[in-house]
Amino acid sequence: MPRFQAATLEAAGSRIFAGAGVPEHEAQIVARSLVQSNLLGHDSHGVIRIQQYVNNVRSGLTRADAVIRTVREAPAMAVLDGGWGFGQVVARHAAELAIAKARLHTVGVVTAYHCNHVGRLGEYVEIAAQAGMLALATVNNHGQGRLLAPFGAKAGRLSPNPIAFGAPRPGDVPFIMDLTPSVVPEGKVRVKRNRGEPLPPGWVQDAEGRPTTDANALYAGGSLLPLGGPVGHKGFALALMVEILSGALGGAGVSRPNPERGGNGLFYAAINPESFLPREQFLSEMRVLADHVKSSPPVDGVAEVFLPGEPEFRTRAGRLRDGIEVEAETVRQIIETGREVGVDVGGLLD
Amino acid sequence: MPRFQAATLEAAGSRIFAGAGVPEHEAQIVARSLVQSNLLGHDSHGVIRIQQYVNNVRSGLTRADAVIRTVREAPAMAVLDGGWGFGQVVARHAAELAIAKARLHTVGVVTAYHCNHVGRLGEYVEIAAQAGMLALATVNNHGQGRLLAPFGAKAGRLSPNPIAFGAPRPGDVPFIMDLTPSVVPEGKVRVKRNRGEPLPPGWVQDAEGRPTTDANALYAGGSLLPLGGPVGHKGFALALMVEILSGALGGAGVSRPNPERGGNGLFYAAINPESFLPREQFLSEMRVLADHVKSSPPVDGVAEVFLPGEPEFRTRAGRLRDGIEVEAETVRQIIETGREVGVDVGGLLD
Repeated sequence: MPRFQAATLEAAGSRIFAGAGVPEHEAQIVARSLVQSNLLGHDSHGVIRIQQYVNNVRSGLTRADAVIRTVREAPAMAVLDGGWGFGQVVARHAAELAIAKARLHTVGVVTAYHCNHVGRLGEYVEIAAQAGMLALATVNNHGQGRLLAPFGAKAGRLSPNPIAFGAPRPGDVPFIMDLTPSVVPEGKVRVKRNRGEPLPPGWVQDAEGRPTTDANALYAGGSLLPLGGPVGHKGFALALMVEILSGALGGAGVSRPNPERGGNGLFYAAINPESFLPREQFLSEMRVLADHVKSSPPVDGVAEVFLPGEPEFRTRAGRLRDGIEVEAETVRQIIETGREVGVDVGGLLD
Repeated sequence: MPRFQAATLEAAGSRIFAGAGVPEHEAQIVARSLVQSNLLGHDSHGVIRIQQYVNNVRSGLTRADAVIRTVREAPAMAVLDGGWGFGQVVARHAAELAIAKARLHTVGVVTAYHCNHVGRLGEYVEIAAQAGMLALATVNNHGQGRLLAPFGAKAGRLSPNPIAFGAPRPGDVPFIMDLTPSVVPEGKVRVKRNRGEPLPPGWVQDAEGRPTTDANALYAGGSLLPLGGPVGHKGFALALMVEILSGALGGAGVSRPNPERGGNGLFYAAINPESFLPREQFLSEMRVLADHVKSSPPVDGVAEVFLPGEPEFRTRAGRLRDGIEVEAETVRQIIETGREVGVDVGGLLD
């Protein structure tokens, strides 16, 4: 499989997005965000999306000329209208604004609507963690999305969207939680379907609310089950919290019968720990917690007890060193997408 | 089984705590908190605790003369030292302070340490929801507590402590989420053990990290499993978030090998939705969400799709009307506890 340095993929992506009319600085943000997903091992959120993103710009779904508008603002908060620009650009702006507010006022809560897919939500809480802050973020599907079933219900009504939480730790690897309140995100079911494999029990129910291991059932009126299995009321409650923070508070609108269009409604809260205690004391507690947890021996068949975020950061270290493998077909699509917007990245990706 | 009106149980509890030296106003807060748990159907957190709470006061574990000290304060935050007083008193104070701050500054984040057991965490986010606010709260065990296993690990290292989230809804019943990041709280295993019943699979592992249905295994070096079963890394991540917010940020200390003593470290954040959008718009979104979710037909064997908090509020309406049943043995203990502190509640509870 062809293998590229992260910087090469970033350069190719940036040039293509810029070719599609996206301002250069924003083109760079989006390309870097995609390559970050590749680096962390989430290839489904990586450069494989370049073609789709360019198509979205060309169809008008994503506005290349979007301007982020501040709808409301006070010292500890802001509401942003993303103008249907790139979600990555809006979410990064929201995160940086919330962090700046937290630095000045202890807490910054920023919401955003009219925002396209932000990509991997963990990316934005990592910005806070790297800046020494705590952050909690959620997105919903801007009113759309009904793949996730309420607990005890037959038909999907909610979007299986993530909750992310980040916190600084001593050293280079922050604490990054990024999870959906469903048992699995939809993408995992899609992979199983494309491979013709049965699903593990507990992931999906069919249109009649019966448990099934048939991946096709999800796409024939079935639904994803909430996190928790027999105690799925917990995952359901978390999914509702996501809707309330992102959709109701955030202004994007909660999941509903006839939404206008899909996107991401964003809730992002940053907290400055230094308002509460000395930085060294906070980091020392983070170290105690990590050591304590890792002192528990792994069960048979597990090599090591990982903190959330750790496996991804190991993958990143390896891929930064050795490069990122990209399927030949994806490389071909990227080059072709470039040609369509008048940009030749063949030299970079040959 | 003897049956009492909530007001009667509250009066008995208040008088007993006051007899044990607790200031009258605080005695009332604690008694009301216990009775609220009975009303909502959580009898294990109700008046059955009166005896234990009085014993804690007499042994000095709970200080009847505690004064809550504000250690740090800024417009959107405060750190409280609870002086090892009643957790209910400290948590209520923290909630009211955070709500007042949110009213003025959009957000109020209040943490507290040196705090005894706060009781049902949902109670405090309900205070916010009833005041038109959103609230997110977590507690840890003040460094103690290792019943919950990290995902993929043999031995418990974390306390299975709750995350609670509350939000206002149109009408009388707010949205109240209150869940532990373990599959079940420890109390459920204890009930099964006392009844000699096997556990459902997936609740507990033994001291060697092997799945078991033997409740005794938990108390012989076993541990509770994190929420999620095969995707228990999600419950584990949530449990770590609880530790970070309550123990590291809050100053109580994270779960560790040799904690000084147990208690509750509290994190409490209130957000004023009216800073973000008009109150009517927020409530309208909450109505859309509830209606949308409830429009999904229940699966076979389930009568109704409930929002978090709804079943408890139905129980409360019934018990407010019909009274609260209390086992004769518990009544006997309460009367005896009263006598020990020179208070005769026999007239109330006969």
